[in-house]
Amino acid sequence: MSHEPLLLGIDAGGTSTRAVLTDSRGECLGYGVGGRGNPISAGPERAADGVMEAIAGALQTAGRSLADIAVVTPAMAGSRASGDHTWLRARLGQHGFDGRLVFESDLLAAYFSGSASPFGYALVSGTGACVVRVRDGRIDGTGDGLGWLLGDRGSGFWIGEAVARAVAQDLDRTGPATAMTDPVLAHYGLVSTGVVREGRTDVLEGLVEALYSRPPIELAALAPFAFAQPDPVADGILRTAGEHLADTLAAVLSGPGPLVIGGSVLSRSGPVRDAFLARLGDAADGLDVLAVGDGAIGAAFLAVRAAGGEPDATTLETLTRTIARFR
Amino acid sequence: MSHEPLLLGIDAGGTSTRAVLTDSRGECLGYGVGGRGNPISAGPERAADGVMEAIAGALQTAGRSLADIAVVTPAMAGSRASGDHTWLRARLGQHGFDGRLVFESDLLAAYFSGSASPFGYALVSGTGACVVRVRDGRIDGTGDGLGWLLGDRGSGFWIGEAVARAVAQDLDRTGPATAMTDPVLAHYGLVSTGVVREGRTDVLEGLVEALYSRPPIELAALAPFAFAQPDPVADGILRTAGEHLADTLAAVLSGPGPLVIGGSVLSRSGPVRDAFLARLGDAADGLDVLAVGDGAIGAAFLAVRAAGGEPDATTLETLTRTIARFR
Repeated sequence: MSHEPLLLGIDAGGTSTRAVLTDSRGECLGYGVGGRGNPISAGPERAADGVMEAIAGALQTAGRSLADIAVVTPAMAGSRASGDHTWLRARLGQHGFDGRLVFESDLLAAYFSGSASPFGYALVSGTGACVVRVRDGRIDGTGDGLGWLLGDRGSGFWIGEAVARAVAQDLDRTGPATAMTDPVLAHYGLVSTGVVREGRTDVLEGLVEALYSRPPIELAALAPFAFAQPDPVADGILRTAGEHLADTLAAVLSGPGPLVIGGSVLSRSGPVRDAFLARLGDAADGLDVLAVGDGAIGAAFLAVRAAGGEPDATTLETLTRTIARFR
Repeated sequence: MSHEPLLLGIDAGGTSTRAVLTDSRGECLGYGVGGRGNPISAGPERAADGVMEAIAGALQTAGRSLADIAVVTPAMAGSRASGDHTWLRARLGQHGFDGRLVFESDLLAAYFSGSASPFGYALVSGTGACVVRVRDGRIDGTGDGLGWLLGDRGSGFWIGEAVARAVAQDLDRTGPATAMTDPVLAHYGLVSTGVVREGRTDVLEGLVEALYSRPPIELAALAPFAFAQPDPVADGILRTAGEHLADTLAAVLSGPGPLVIGGSVLSRSGPVRDAFLARLGDAADGLDVLAVGDGAIGAAFLAVRAAGGEPDATTLETLTRTIARFR
């Protein structure tokens, strides 16, 4: 058994959390999964539950405890803003942890999940959308990530909201018909009774009621309907999303480098990706594009760095290969 | 003193309420103003306060009481959806009212504030945006009015959100510079300290924090910044708003008629109105456009109708002339 310090990299997301137990060379010794891990969206108590659950899984695999851990590195959205980290430190301490706790950006974890280069870009479009430029291994430029109300252009929320608006306009006859309407109505269990009041159908009233009774962010759940079948309205939404993501990236571009893609919106081929590359034009030639599934590898990479190591391409390769054994 | 029945028309809005005491010929005998009158946005208790305050003012002018009133006609947004009217009936009953209570649409009240024609259109763009087609004196077609999340395209909210997004993109350098940025930052008391973290300025972080800590609907308060000074970005927002309003109207257009305009967005000349008329094209020729300040006259007109009268152009003229004495 190694006498080297053991480290935990945590990829703490809005819906689930992953913990990677690694040594300083990037050899993964354990891996665990937990529930929601972001204190901003899930609340501190529940987020701590999710993180601790993932950590317990990773430690159990290797027969270790938190007392053996030198550094814990949770990577999460808004890590900078939530300066008070007691919500997690207290829970870790209860389980014997007395090492260092170093928070990192989820964007940086996404980046180092795909590249070890000190210069490059990460673009994550899941529920939200954000681009960062990495220089000397740190974020030195940010585009969008402004949230559903002010930005996140080209994100899953943005697409879902556009789907909802397009369906509402179809039913309202203020917009073109779209094949998305029937499946979206079915999604909310809405069936027409044929009743029309003041020129407005009961299904449109039902849709309005259904959507306003939920938190706005849940519109992101409608994004898949835009990808589901060929439709001119859906195609227009997806192409515009791709263009928005390209414009956000263009705002931080300063030369060639790796571009790590995270989130489901841009990870598959199709209209979003096509419009994204077309809009970037020649600038795309200098980018080495690679998609990552989540930020677990990068969180472990950042844990190695936080422990004083100098992780490089070999570390990334080791992490990628050894984490794969566990999932 | 007339032995005719006395009627109350109420224009109950999201920010203030107006009550008109009239006889069946449209002779205004009293006028009062109250606070917020819409139970959906203000809550039933507070909305009843606003309506009762306006009624008390109107009755006081004429030395009358609610026991003298045959019909009360509150016109308000969502009047159809909020089928349970006990929130107001109970309060009216406490003050001696035993007549009829007839709720009407705020759009119809806006329409009859400008026209007595049984066929025509009303377009209201204030915080929200909605168009109705009136036929035989009833609403038989509706466009938009789908609320801030799904529609209200070209409304004050829509413009305010576009202003917020444009300013955020300016500060984020993902969009063009705009003259609206400085006044909007000043509006929220945000001053730059020059601090930049991860390529993001402190004022942008401050703006994001300020806007997400308020209810989304308050973005409507930023709409005036688009009208404040000539600016290409603001101009683009206003022109698109005008085009959206024209498209919404076009969806219910079926022949020439009066077009009554309510709300502040389209009531003034400038880019919104220019783009609106340009987009309508030849269809604008058949429309007799007139702007109204609020729905008080139309609410009284509808009260006359609800009492069994047949209000016409003479009634409207009488209401318009006699209400003017009181305000």
